[in-house]
Amino acid sequence: MKIISRIEQSLAAAIAMGEDATCPPKLAGAIRHAVFPGGARIRPQLCLAVAHACGDDDPLLSDATAVAIELLHCASLVHDDLPCFDNAATRRGRASVQWAYGPSLAVLAGDALIVRAFQTLAICAQNSPLRLGGLMLTVGEGVGTPRGIVAGQAWESEARVNLGDYQRAKTGALFVAATAGGAQAAGADPAPWRAMGEWLGEAYQVADDIRDVAADPALLGKPVGRDVVLGRPSAAIELGLGGALAHFKHLIAAASESVPDCRGAAQLRALVAAESERLVPVAMAEALTRRVQAESVAAT
Amino acid sequence: MKIISRIEQSLAAAIAMGEDATCPPKLAGAIRHAVFPGGARIRPQLCLAVAHACGDDDPLLSDATAVAIELLHCASLVHDDLPCFDNAATRRGRASVQWAYGPSLAVLAGDALIVRAFQTLAICAQNSPLRLGGLMLTVGEGVGTPRGIVAGQAWESEARVNLGDYQRAKTGALFVAATAGGAQAAGADPAPWRAMGEWLGEAYQVADDIRDVAADPALLGKPVGRDVVLGRPSAAIELGLGGALAHFKHLIAAASESVPDCRGAAQLRALVAAESERLVPVAMAEALTRRVQAESVAAT
Repeated sequence: MKIISRIEQSLAAAIAMGEDATCPPKLAGAIRHAVFPGGARIRPQLCLAVAHACGDDDPLLSDATAVAIELLHCASLVHDDLPCFDNAATRRGRASVQWAYGPSLAVLAGDALIVRAFQTLAICAQNSPLRLGGLMLTVGEGVGTPRGIVAGQAWESEARVNLGDYQRAKTGALFVAATAGGAQAAGADPAPWRAMGEWLGEAYQVADDIRDVAADPALLGKPVGRDVVLGRPSAAIELGLGGALAHFKHLIAAASESVPDCRGAAQLRALVAAESERLVPVAMAEALTRRVQAESVAAT
Repeated sequence: MKIISRIEQSLAAAIAMGEDATCPPKLAGAIRHAVFPGGARIRPQLCLAVAHACGDDDPLLSDATAVAIELLHCASLVHDDLPCFDNAATRRGRASVQWAYGPSLAVLAGDALIVRAFQTLAICAQNSPLRLGGLMLTVGEGVGTPRGIVAGQAWESEARVNLGDYQRAKTGALFVAATAGGAQAAGADPAPWRAMGEWLGEAYQVADDIRDVAADPALLGKPVGRDVVLGRPSAAIELGLGGALAHFKHLIAAASESVPDCRGAAQLRALVAAESERLVPVAMAEALTRRVQAESVAAT
């Protein structure tokens, strides 16, 4: 089965487990809206690619780990779109959950998704119960305090922020959970896989910052220029567009080099390259570089 | 060690684990504000009392279960006080988290508490790793979809609500997690302990409804009459104050009778009696009954 079909099927099964006649229908609708249709599903793809490279001896648990990470990512997007944060009306090219269902149900859908992530791990660890505790800690680290997504979002409420700490928590931590968790689900040592998640997570955040100031809103599926409007830390603001583009290339190269020697190394490097092209297409990078050069000439 | 000191120490240890120099300080403050000082800590007390009655052979895990349930309860209060729900300025007699730290940090503190609950279970299951999966499912059922706290709160967004379903999800489910989880943490069968949680949870919700329409706001530590203002389902509104008082007495008696035969049965029944008196003191019930009778005479 193709990796993306495997992810969508596992997500559908996990969400269906929380639904029955006793579930409030609007909440069930808001949860589905938050998860389907998805974005690029890059975190679960990464998780399954690493699990595969490590032997994937318990596919049920690998799938559950990928699902848990994607559900936590969806939860963070739903809460991030709330009026008290971005107040976003759109997400993935259509109405955000808070816009379609209201902020109360958006808060609850996010909460339910966090719980469902851990429930999915517990349900699917039946064949390898001794892996559950470590896996939960890896996943929990990616999302909770002191250095997970929640902490990353909370840095936006602080007057002084270190850009690296902020990006590592807001984006990097869940990428680390994806790579390290993928290894752990397959019974492997997660430590050698952390670096890949760290580099990719930072690359992803820098790409997001670049796209926020540079991209066409129709392509992005959400409003652009929000970082400037909301005063959020941004690599594209801190390093300039040219500096951010160079940094992105460096991070992608480091992610590729960090892949440990293993059966699936070539496949993983191909995934990194494809992701780089998806995030900042070469044509876009060239156009932005020309823009930076033209602006620099105009300024002198 | 007294049961309440054991709970406070375990809560303090669990919260400290999420704090270090890399945690955003306001988020750490909001999380502490949500958990300390606490309310009656009735759910963790109940959990530990049941664990004790079942032999308490792994106190680390019993404590973690009690902590997880209390952290999930605190998370639900923090989110329930948000502007899109109750918009409460006070909680437990002082500023609510959203009032003291703003809604963004209140959303994130709630999220972090949900994650910390599961992290605590994972960390403390080291001596009994095979109990972790089942325990997570019991705890998850109490808080997630389709029938946990989150579902209970979501019923408030539906046009048609069955009072029983609403109360079972909003309050009962976490009481069931407390009694069943306490048994499971001690390696016992959780099934015989579910009824006690169900009865007590419903009693607690009915008491809350009675207090909402009847009590002095200074004693309650939060504004009263909110159910009427917010149009929420309420036993005191649906059954009348007299009917709700009778229903409460019936539920407490059922909870007491449901305690399975065990070493700690007498102690558990004493806890139920003490909780009944704390929730609806006999003096308050008598005063309310006189008020209902006087109103009924005046109406004829």
